[in-house]
Amino acid sequence: MSEDDASSSPASPSDSTTTKQAANSTTRRTPDTKYAHVYATHSSKRNSRLSQDAEVAPSFVGFRNLMVLVLIVSNFRLMIENFRKYGVLICIQCHDYRRQDLLNGLYLYCLVPLQLFVAYLIEYVAADRAKAAVARMKRSGEDLNTPEKQRQALRSFRSTWYLIALCHGINATIGLAYATTVVYYDIYHPGIGTICELHAVIVWLKSCSYALTNRDLRHAYLHPSYAQALPDLYKSCPYPRNINLKNLCYFWWAPTLVYQPVYPRTSHIRWTFVLKRIAECIGLSIVIWIASAQYAAPLLRNSLDKISTLDLVSICERVMKLSTISLFCWLCGFFALFQSFLNALAEIMTFADREFYGDWWNVSSIRTYWTTWNKPVTNFMRRHIYSPLVARGCPKGLAQMIVFCISGVLHELLVGIPTHNVIGVAFAGMMFQIPLILLTDVIQTFKGIRGKVAGNMIFWISFCIVGQPLAALLYFFAWQAKYGSVSRQFQESPALNLFRRR
Amino acid sequence: MSEDDASSSPASPSDSTTTKQAANSTTRRTPDTKYAHVYATHSSKRNSRLSQDAEVAPSFVGFRNLMVLVLIVSNFRLMIENFRKYGVLICIQCHDYRRQDLLNGLYLYCLVPLQLFVAYLIEYVAADRAKAAVARMKRSGEDLNTPEKQRQALRSFRSTWYLIALCHGINATIGLAYATTVVYYDIYHPGIGTICELHAVIVWLKSCSYALTNRDLRHAYLHPSYAQALPDLYKSCPYPRNINLKNLCYFWWAPTLVYQPVYPRTSHIRWTFVLKRIAECIGLSIVIWIASAQYAAPLLRNSLDKISTLDLVSICERVMKLSTISLFCWLCGFFALFQSFLNALAEIMTFADREFYGDWWNVSSIRTYWTTWNKPVTNFMRRHIYSPLVARGCPKGLAQMIVFCISGVLHELLVGIPTHNVIGVAFAGMMFQIPLILLTDVIQTFKGIRGKVAGNMIFWISFCIVGQPLAALLYFFAWQAKYGSVSRQFQESPALNLFRRR
Repeated sequence: MSEDDASSSPASPSDSTTTKQAANSTTRRTPDTKYAHVYATHSSKRNSRLSQDAEVAPSFVGFRNLMVLVLIVSNFRLMIENFRKYGVLICIQCHDYRRQDLLNGLYLYCLVPLQLFVAYLIEYVAADRAKAAVARMKRSGEDLNTPEKQRQALRSFRSTWYLIALCHGINATIGLAYATTVVYYDIYHPGIGTICELHAVIVWLKSCSYALTNRDLRHAYLHPSYAQALPDLYKSCPYPRNINLKNLCYFWWAPTLVYQPVYPRTSHIRWTFVLKRIAECIGLSIVIWIASAQYAAPLLRNSLDKISTLDLVSICERVMKLSTISLFCWLCGFFALFQSFLNALAEIMTFADREFYGDWWNVSSIRTYWTTWNKPVTNFMRRHIYSPLVARGCPKGLAQMIVFCISGVLHELLVGIPTHNVIGVAFAGMMFQIPLILLTDVIQTFKGIRGKVAGNMIFWISFCIVGQPLAALLYFFAWQAKYGSVSRQFQESPALNLFRRR
Repeated sequence: MSEDDASSSPASPSDSTTTKQAANSTTRRTPDTKYAHVYATHSSKRNSRLSQDAEVAPSFVGFRNLMVLVLIVSNFRLMIENFRKYGVLICIQCHDYRRQDLLNGLYLYCLVPLQLFVAYLIEYVAADRAKAAVARMKRSGEDLNTPEKQRQALRSFRSTWYLIALCHGINATIGLAYATTVVYYDIYHPGIGTICELHAVIVWLKSCSYALTNRDLRHAYLHPSYAQALPDLYKSCPYPRNINLKNLCYFWWAPTLVYQPVYPRTSHIRWTFVLKRIAECIGLSIVIWIASAQYAAPLLRNSLDKISTLDLVSICERVMKLSTISLFCWLCGFFALFQSFLNALAEIMTFADREFYGDWWNVSSIRTYWTTWNKPVTNFMRRHIYSPLVARGCPKGLAQMIVFCISGVLHELLVGIPTHNVIGVAFAGMMFQIPLILLTDVIQTFKGIRGKVAGNMIFWISFCIVGQPLAALLYFFAWQAKYGSVSRQFQESPALNLFRRR
């Protein structure tokens, strides 16, 4: 109860603190306490809380609580409806993956990291040659700092680098291409396929970073005048010493895609922290599994005939219904992977930089979203693609486009390959971000809070309401068109023919 | 993008301000700008934003926006679903009220205020007698301040007051009873009935306040030693002068239930303000009408068989589905009545105290809700029931119970009479508030913000999710059981027999 409330009434029928104050003041004011009936309830000019001329802007924190509640209740209602319609769809034993898929997955899981060790071997040879070159220079007492010598050294370094880069390129390409081929042709189950493909992409990015970082480190090693440009952090492990198996294995398991000879580290492992994060991870995985099996799967299934008849209003309605559940799964998945899993891994590896994501949920421009939601990839793109491009004189806008295109290709790889449908929706979705970025760039400059809220709304609409469920629907439909019962049920559907014609 | 973000990367692939800063620092640090690959991305110990050991508590303002969006989208989806199921149910010409109902309503609308004028006549006679008594006292030069005389005067005042109170009581009771009888027996349409009953209750409360306030004013007039206990505001219109028709008519139309000889007033009427409020009022009424006709009515109708078979899970599901639409209608109705209508009326009457409601949506105890959502009634209850009871030595808890019981009776009157079913659900709903008040009193004392949020959640659940739709369902069902097609359709329903047995 507010202050002015207390002063405006002789006694409150229900608020006890007010009652006390008011009762006191009544006794003070009137010798006959029965005079309550004449108390001046309306004693001053006051405005309604929701009026524009209200003294203070009203707080709406209660409506936030109400929204949470309405969301819970309305989704709980949908859960009851779903249960009455379909019964319990969750079933632990009726998995639909083949034994061969699991074996192929395990095989890839063991094979893919070999790529990192090959990269290590290449770097080992390169470091050996660099050490020999430095020893030779030292022996001959040559002075590298004359311009002529410098140019010559640079030329020699470059030709060596091209050779090393070629080796790394072949190694990385073979690794990724092989894993992708196995996933596309030999792993039927899209879940297992996604995990394998994700693993292959991560290892591929790690090998690239390992090669590129060591290239610069070697350059600094061969040209000592540049060595002060290196971060102070690396001083505890200078160049040729960092090329060792222990250092590589740490990078292999560290929750980052960016190679550094030295990382900030914590002093010890808090095992309770690790256990809590693992428990979160398992719990959320179960929640996601239940949500997809019980809610998303029937929804996707009964959306199929709507898509196959290209009924636009119905597709909209389905996409909207799907948006809640896909958003829920996405948020759970994000938390499980970026908060719980990566933090657990970082704790075990005593990796101290835990900034795996920013507060992307508050972003007011889609540009910022893409740089905050997935920091490991953002860091990689910044360090190894964007910055070098800009440093070489590439216009910033073009560099951004290039980063986005690469990101689009990776998205398509991660979604299209495991679902055996490289239909380009994920790539197109990424490309669709570019006009949205330009739009929210303009909108967020609008004055005050409105621009920010509008930008944030556009972000949520584009990403979680339209983007996620639409993409899920399309890939699920493409999957069903290729393998599922739909291709038998809807032989003559116009939409199916669209997909077939591709 | 946050500050630390900018400092952690050589260049951002997308955020332009960061890019500039970072590009500068890259040039400063490294003579060879191609050294971007060795930049120490992970340079310090940092925690994840959502970790408990995060440096700053994360902001979740984006999730608030998301909630708004999800609410809009999910309800828009339900609107599409509803439209596909039922088509357009809104129809301007197919009203279902009888001509006789309208005539009876108009008749009551003209007749009911007569009660106020009768109360005026009673007060006029009383004031006349009081003036005569004071003149007599002055003529005889009697000193009222001796204890013996005072006691005698008090006795005489009391016996007169009992007579006046009897007259007022008969007047008010006849007025309310007559209106209630007409509504119950002669007005079939529940909408018209509710408006008539509401009008009758408002006028009844106004007459009570008029009688009680003038009683105290007269007492002060007859006992000048008490007169300084009167509020200063009333000095511009002392007791017998306020008993005039103009003053009464102002009170008749003023947006308050509490009589004061003088109210705080504004200097002029802002007609644009009035027009805006009236436009809001009309617009919201149309919105409520559409919402009830298109969404609430089919929902209520297809809930009937669920209730009639007493299927509890289905009733829960229906109540939850109904909760959103009833909450929406309630909020619109609240705004239309308490913000738009009362503000428009207050502006026309140059009534300056516009505090018709507090920020009840933020309350953390149900106790506070009941004292903030409807200030006119709260003010009446405080001034004319609670305070006098407490002043006469009634324990506060008991006084609160009495206020709640009276409030419950009024609620039942306003809901049960127009629906021709005094089934006691509204009264029981009010009585159910008492344990909830005790519960939230305890909960809101829990430390920190959690207690407040929990209290607010309990308030929303009890009131808007369970209370409103359940009451609407039960009264609608009782109505259908008495008049509707249900009584023909479900002759043998167990629930119907429950209602019939009453």
